[in-house]
Amino acid sequence: MRVHSAAFTIGTRGKGTYEITGQVAAEVAASGVGDGSVTVFVRHTSCSLIIMENADPTARRDLEKFFERLVPEDTPYFEHTAEGGDDSTSHIRSVLTRSSEVIPIVDGRMQLGNWQGIFLFEHRRAPHQRQVALSVIGP
Amino acid sequence: MRVHSAAFTIGTRGKGTYEITGQVAAEVAASGVGDGSVTVFVRHTSCSLIIMENADPTARRDLEKFFERLVPEDTPYFEHTAEGGDDSTSHIRSVLTRSSEVIPIVDGRMQLGNWQGIFLFEHRRAPHQRQVALSVIGP
Amino acid sequence: MRVHSAAFTIGTRGKGTYEITGQVAAEVAASGVGDGSVTVFVRHTSCSLIIMENADPTARRDLEKFFERLVPEDTPYFEHTAEGGDDSTSHIRSVLTRSSEVIPIVDGRMQLGNWQGIFLFEHRRAPHQRQVALSVIGP
Repeated sequence: MRVHSAAFTIGTRGKGTYEITGQVAAEVAASGVGDGSVTVFVRHTSCSLIIMENADPTARRDLEKFFERLVPEDTPYFEHTAEGGDDSTSHIRSVLTRSSEVIPIVDGRMQLGNWQGIFLFEHRRAPHQRQVALSVIGP
Repeated sequence: MRVHSAAFTIGTRGKGTYEITGQVAAEVAASGVGDGSVTVFVRHTSCSLIIMENADPTARRDLEKFFERLVPEDTPYFEHTAEGGDDSTSHIRSVLTRSSEVIPIVDGRMQLGNWQGIFLFEHRRAPHQRQVALSVIGP
Repeated sequence: MRVHSAAFTIGTRGKGTYEITGQVAAEVAASGVGDGSVTVFVRHTSCSLIIMENADPTARRDLEKFFERLVPEDTPYFEHTAEGGDDSTSHIRSVLTRSSEVIPIVDGRMQLGNWQGIFLFEHRRAPHQRQVALSVIGP
């Protein structure tokens, strides 16, 4: 039984989706795990994780436009605005998506489908350094 | 330490919720794991997973109606429509629900509550063959 | 390889967010696991889990107000109302948030970020006893 703990930082350039599939796959390979699973965890409450279509960029653009409408910035009834009009907005968008994802591994490979990518979803207008923690478990 | 990797395919008949609790429970039993956990992972970005009330079908009908309104098909500002008016809609509904779920196992039994079922949530109008990957881990 | 299975009950006083970070951390400590992960699972379909900013209570208040608007109680087209106008509402709010979360553990400590707390999100008006199941896995 093996646990491979890892972490990496990704620099974001403001709101949007940033693919991290490659970084996760590299740690799965480094772990030496054949069959098991990898937990991906984002250590923030104003960005989040999604597993999304990674072929056509318009799919992610539609997603981003949808979230702009679903949880608008500068919503008048929001009280938690100390860090700006994207403050509560960011937390709520995070809650509607994911903090953790777990992906099975078979024969050393994540069982992602053909069109699935793992993305960090940045909800803040300003650039940030974001920490992602990984735990790969298997024999 | 044991990892039982498994996968199954479920044929959907278009949009709706399809219970897969039985298929997951069968693999948990086959794994021989006493205490541990099972990861359920859907290998697609236009269908997703939910854990939902499995007694009264009207609960799921309300859920489905809600999603029709929250993320409507044929939304005018969607650009990603190559596969039809349910294309971006499907991806966004997936992002708002789950790709992975992890359920603790005690004494060989998933710790689902009395009314919890695991469902595949199909967001496409057309029938599809959907792949679900499982990883059961425990000593 | 070690699996530490645990469970606890939390009494809610109606709708709102209830922090459970301390209870989860106590079981992680009790497990003796150094590197691994903890799965947190809520055994209900009318309350859910979120990982949320735990410093300023207005952040959670905004979140709660947002959900009141996103999935209103007493929605006219809901059919599943046997238990009241918060019945389908509760299930849908649960589906939009999480049933399970998995958090990596390094050197015996959950890898939560500085401002992350784990919360049970109660969607029912009436007080309830809620069961949370945990599975801590590691060598």
